[in-house]
Amino acid sequence: MHGGHVMTVERLSIIGIGLIGGSLAAALKQGRAPPRIVACDCDHNTLEKARRLGLTDAGHTEPEHAVAGSQLVVLAVPPSAMPGVLRSLATRLPADCILTDVASVKGQVVELAARSLGEAVARFVPGHPLAGTERSGIEAARADLFRGRRVILTPTPQTDLQALQEVRKLWEGLGAVVDEMEAAAHDRILAATSHLPHVLAYSLVRMVLEQEGQGSLLRHAASGFADTTRIAASDPCLWRDIFFANQSALLAAIDAFSARLAELRSVIEAGDDAETLALLRSAKQARDGLAAARGERA
Amino acid sequence: MHGGHVMTVERLSIIGIGLIGGSLAAALKQGRAPPRIVACDCDHNTLEKARRLGLTDAGHTEPEHAVAGSQLVVLAVPPSAMPGVLRSLATRLPADCILTDVASVKGQVVELAARSLGEAVARFVPGHPLAGTERSGIEAARADLFRGRRVILTPTPQTDLQALQEVRKLWEGLGAVVDEMEAAAHDRILAATSHLPHVLAYSLVRMVLEQEGQGSLLRHAASGFADTTRIAASDPCLWRDIFFANQSALLAAIDAFSARLAELRSVIEAGDDAETLALLRSAKQARDGLAAARGERA
Repeated sequence: MHGGHVMTVERLSIIGIGLIGGSLAAALKQGRAPPRIVACDCDHNTLEKARRLGLTDAGHTEPEHAVAGSQLVVLAVPPSAMPGVLRSLATRLPADCILTDVASVKGQVVELAARSLGEAVARFVPGHPLAGTERSGIEAARADLFRGRRVILTPTPQTDLQALQEVRKLWEGLGAVVDEMEAAAHDRILAATSHLPHVLAYSLVRMVLEQEGQGSLLRHAASGFADTTRIAASDPCLWRDIFFANQSALLAAIDAFSARLAELRSVIEAGDDAETLALLRSAKQARDGLAAARGERA
Repeated sequence: MHGGHVMTVERLSIIGIGLIGGSLAAALKQGRAPPRIVACDCDHNTLEKARRLGLTDAGHTEPEHAVAGSQLVVLAVPPSAMPGVLRSLATRLPADCILTDVASVKGQVVELAARSLGEAVARFVPGHPLAGTERSGIEAARADLFRGRRVILTPTPQTDLQALQEVRKLWEGLGAVVDEMEAAAHDRILAATSHLPHVLAYSLVRMVLEQEGQGSLLRHAASGFADTTRIAASDPCLWRDIFFANQSALLAAIDAFSARLAELRSVIEAGDDAETLALLRSAKQARDGLAAARGERA
């Protein structure tokens, strides 16, 4: 599982200092012998803020300037910025420098990296910490964001094993649980368990807004409706990017969901007591297993 | 708003000692000069447990025995038990006794009461505390369940105003915020904001279960998926009852939702950047208003 030689990361670059990049910097700075952290962001104010908070040691607006001398580079930019960043880094990565990312959709990044990075693609370890919230930006960063959360790495046959172990060690050092799977499997699972729920929450809020108006929505502030729709407050630009980046898996997930919804609708319309109960019971049973795994109150 | 004469409830009956009935008893017993509370439940163990916990003073398994001598009767039975309970109480309610209920669907109860109660229907105040959780039964009862929550009363033109004020006073005394609206408006709003989200959560869990299996579901215990689907752990029997009781409003809500889902699906499939962003933004804007009303972190 673990490689022989253990690298000590003395200098690390984070490209994009938002919720994930900022939380990563904060978590690393709380460790023993924290690395020097060089940030890159297109926004001067964000760079300034990260430095004032003690999260980073230096800041640049151009990725190629931020990676000089680093042993590990983490790409934490929105999906739409990924092609440009990969292109600008392709020939500027220091020798032996390991590259990883945190994008929510892996197939697209794996493809982009193969096209952009040339031989350096072997040192690129695609990754995704499952640790987003409906909030975004460095203001929402927290040093404990990754503690107990899952990080999925999606290495390819080209990925260098030492690089893979280093990235695994990075996340495990922050208290995360690391899984490995193929990019396509990741994207299919995330389409169903994350991207689809966002599509449903956005659609549900729009349906209630259209039917009842904003006033009625507000009066439901105290009900369970607020919990169900919290993720509809997520950043629209980020989620549009994610939806397009994972388009085909998401469309398939929407269709599979719609089939289950139509099935339940049809037994309700038919007044089919036994079948309705059977469908709800199978869902409850599955969800109860999840509750047990989380240690939720029964 | 408030009637002249204020009644002191010295003896109150609760028919059905589950999450809502049990929480109501617990909340009332915490007040100054709590009433004598007589419980009715078809389950001897539940009655015994309620008495042991100090929530109730006496218990019966037949509603007509439990209401003798009471000034206020609260029906807190599942929707499917409501017709039988209303029939058995029709001629047994003490004179001037006020009757209310807590059912999640109001149109059906209003209709049943009109058919069953004769002249006593004037003293029936249909009500719904928006305070359910995914848990059920007296084990889940909490004295603070109604604090800060909404209670919707749906009086008809036949409802006695003094009875309406007494029921309002009951809930306000427990810290709830009381609204009044027509039963049909209540059922349409709850179909969209409560019953539909349950349909979506049940369908989402079934879709993921079918696609990925229980193992994958469990590995998502730590992700936001757990929050989105928590309500799929709700009692299948209760929710089947609710779905059938509010069938027509629920089918309309499912169809209105499906139209919004199809709209979002189609702009994602078309790769329409601007329109996708516009749809997500309108949802976020509406949901942000709700977050502000709740005082959630921005």
